[in-house]
Amino acid sequence: MNHIEKLVEGFKRFRRHNYEENRALFDRLTRQGQSPKTIVVGCCDSRVDPAIVTDSDPGDLFIIRNVANLVPPFETSGNYHGTSAALEFGVRHLEVENIVVLGHAHCGGIRALLDEAPGDKPGEGFIAEWMKVASNARNRVLSRMHGEPLEKQVRACEQEAILVSLDNLLTFPWILERVAQRKLALHGWYFDMEHGELLAYNPGSNRFEALS
Amino acid sequence: MNHIEKLVEGFKRFRRHNYEENRALFDRLTRQGQSPKTIVVGCCDSRVDPAIVTDSDPGDLFIIRNVANLVPPFETSGNYHGTSAALEFGVRHLEVENIVVLGHAHCGGIRALLDEAPGDKPGEGFIAEWMKVASNARNRVLSRMHGEPLEKQVRACEQEAILVSLDNLLTFPWILERVAQRKLALHGWYFDMEHGELLAYNPGSNRFEALS
Amino acid sequence: MNHIEKLVEGFKRFRRHNYEENRALFDRLTRQGQSPKTIVVGCCDSRVDPAIVTDSDPGDLFIIRNVANLVPPFETSGNYHGTSAALEFGVRHLEVENIVVLGHAHCGGIRALLDEAPGDKPGEGFIAEWMKVASNARNRVLSRMHGEPLEKQVRACEQEAILVSLDNLLTFPWILERVAQRKLALHGWYFDMEHGELLAYNPGSNRFEALS
Amino acid sequence: MNHIEKLVEGFKRFRRHNYEENRALFDRLTRQGQSPKTIVVGCCDSRVDPAIVTDSDPGDLFIIRNVANLVPPFETSGNYHGTSAALEFGVRHLEVENIVVLGHAHCGGIRALLDEAPGDKPGEGFIAEWMKVASNARNRVLSRMHGEPLEKQVRACEQEAILVSLDNLLTFPWILERVAQRKLALHGWYFDMEHGELLAYNPGSNRFEALS
Repeated sequence: MNHIEKLVEGFKRFRRHNYEENRALFDRLTRQGQSPKTIVVGCCDSRVDPAIVTDSDPGDLFIIRNVANLVPPFETSGNYHGTSAALEFGVRHLEVENIVVLGHAHCGGIRALLDEAPGDKPGEGFIAEWMKVASNARNRVLSRMHGEPLEKQVRACEQEAILVSLDNLLTFPWILERVAQRKLALHGWYFDMEHGELLAYNPGSNRFEALS
Repeated sequence: MNHIEKLVEGFKRFRRHNYEENRALFDRLTRQGQSPKTIVVGCCDSRVDPAIVTDSDPGDLFIIRNVANLVPPFETSGNYHGTSAALEFGVRHLEVENIVVLGHAHCGGIRALLDEAPGDKPGEGFIAEWMKVASNARNRVLSRMHGEPLEKQVRACEQEAILVSLDNLLTFPWILERVAQRKLALHGWYFDMEHGELLAYNPGSNRFEALS
Repeated sequence: MNHIEKLVEGFKRFRRHNYEENRALFDRLTRQGQSPKTIVVGCCDSRVDPAIVTDSDPGDLFIIRNVANLVPPFETSGNYHGTSAALEFGVRHLEVENIVVLGHAHCGGIRALLDEAPGDKPGEGFIAEWMKVASNARNRVLSRMHGEPLEKQVRACEQEAILVSLDNLLTFPWILERVAQRKLALHGWYFDMEHGELLAYNPGSNRFEALS
Repeated sequence: MNHIEKLVEGFKRFRRHNYEENRALFDRLTRQGQSPKTIVVGCCDSRVDPAIVTDSDPGDLFIIRNVANLVPPFETSGNYHGTSAALEFGVRHLEVENIVVLGHAHCGGIRALLDEAPGDKPGEGFIAEWMKVASNARNRVLSRMHGEPLEKQVRACEQEAILVSLDNLLTFPWILERVAQRKLALHGWYFDMEHGELLAYNPGSNRFEALS
């Protein structure tokens, strides 16, 4: 059975169990439309599905997934701001109350960012271009931890990149406004796959601390 | 209990059940890294989680989620090509064998695209800018179905937009090359929430047909 | 007799026969101006003259001829949009009721487009630049028919390029509007010189089918 | 019978007569490819079909048709240089021996160019943009003939625009080279529909003189 056939089989299981059990919920969500309370900005990584990791129900989470769960800054030039468009949809149209930036351990995008030496020219292609969003995180780590093991640098950079994205969220005027009015809250979370732990950024201690 | 507390409770359930049951799998995925066989380009919509709808396991799907599950064309100008970066990561680094563009019924992004009259100037903001990726889909529907009920137009446009994204996937040279060599297969799927059906585009009949 | 002398001799024959026989028509067309009902976008190819192939009278067809009968997408940047200017003249000033994109077999422009391998960089010069209009047609053919005989690929690409031009016609707002209002109809035709057949695209069957 | 049905009927007549009578010629042109000796740059005008006006056979003329039969200057910036691409194909690939710029009386494009007063801002849209190619012709006419009847100005401008296009042809390095080597000849012709006359530009007298 190739992988596409496996997905079709998986859909049939979903159809028999999850869909049938949640039939009333799906009907309501179809009739009334979605009204999620939370946006999650997650990574494309196949090991970290935001809905599964939070055991959420259909309709709960508006989920953006890109490489390394990054939020670029507000910019009106350029084209195809996919993540910005999704934030606009969730914040202005769906009026969510929370945005969770959900990072995770062993992120390939962050590792690629750190693989270059401090003075290197940035790599070619879309990934290198995209990862520039997190260049402040890289710079902080390289300036403080130069010479330490790469594993430790990667982990630190994964967490710093979440803080960069939280900063970038505030560059969107319609986010800043709602945050100031306490209509919208921003959260930085980090899923540590290895130990099955979920950490949250605590601005008071300036650390990521276990939620669970 | 607010929504963030609910998510934390959900994580604890995930931790006790899903994570414990898949402990060996998570360990292996952490040690060896991910090697998903399929990219899914899905919508941010809270009702359509690709991993849940296909009952997939951790490590199975590299998932990109943006508004209306769109793939923009290959373009080297502009900045922050989030979706293109994710495709590059999945195709060139992870060497997936399939890309599924997973559309769905009742898509808010597609409805926004059709709400404008044929002669209207496009709206402002990131969503309108982003949805331009699907303007060929909109044009086809407006040219053929002008005057028909909006619901029918939206459904047709949701499906045409999948075809536009399939065309756009082929504009990436490293995708076209692999498709021509039969190393990578492209699929257009449509999840009909209302009836719990999964349809796939059949190029032979030029129709979306039930998979299940 | 060189070719220019032959053309002058040809004009004399035209003058004696066609012009004299249609004297009243030419007089009327001169006094009242032209009011063609149809635009034809045809190829420059010397073997496929749209007025001759449809045995049309003076005044019947507003004819645009460029390499490979392409319609570029609506774009307000750039200069010297010759085809777009001609469409604007025919649609907005002459108010034609039909646009026929007339492709044909053995098109040199399409063959040039396919001569490059999937991963090749595009060639230099105006032709390569112009033929980029049809790159989606090329991609579709290369993704589906890689390894098949070039003749079959060229024929498929000639037909796909017509569909790309039909899509591109709809990107002009004053075309989309008239098509939606049923004031203007778009047609994709294909002249098969070898067999003397004229095929038309049928959106229902997604095929080119014999008209004659 | 609508116009599209008329065109199909016209094709059937073409098929029965012209195509059958020229069967051997079409077969040869299909097998050996086209080898026209002459490019004609003609107008889209429905009253002036270059192949009909010169009673030419299939395979004789490589025909470019745009609004007002203009040749833009050689320019490598910008996109979609349709006319330049067609010239490149005819001159460099088909190696034609002649280029005829075929103007005509009562040209709507030229009239539009002259309708603006000398100090006017140019109109909007593709036509105004495209007609800028002929702005030198307009300037010459307005400087010499200001106050004369519009009809006379239009006719003079139609002829001056042919001279501008002849100048522009020489801006293409691969045209200039062949003209200097006497491998390619440039001709400026003017079809006077009203009187059924064909005029050619004579550089010696600096006039358009009857060919027939």
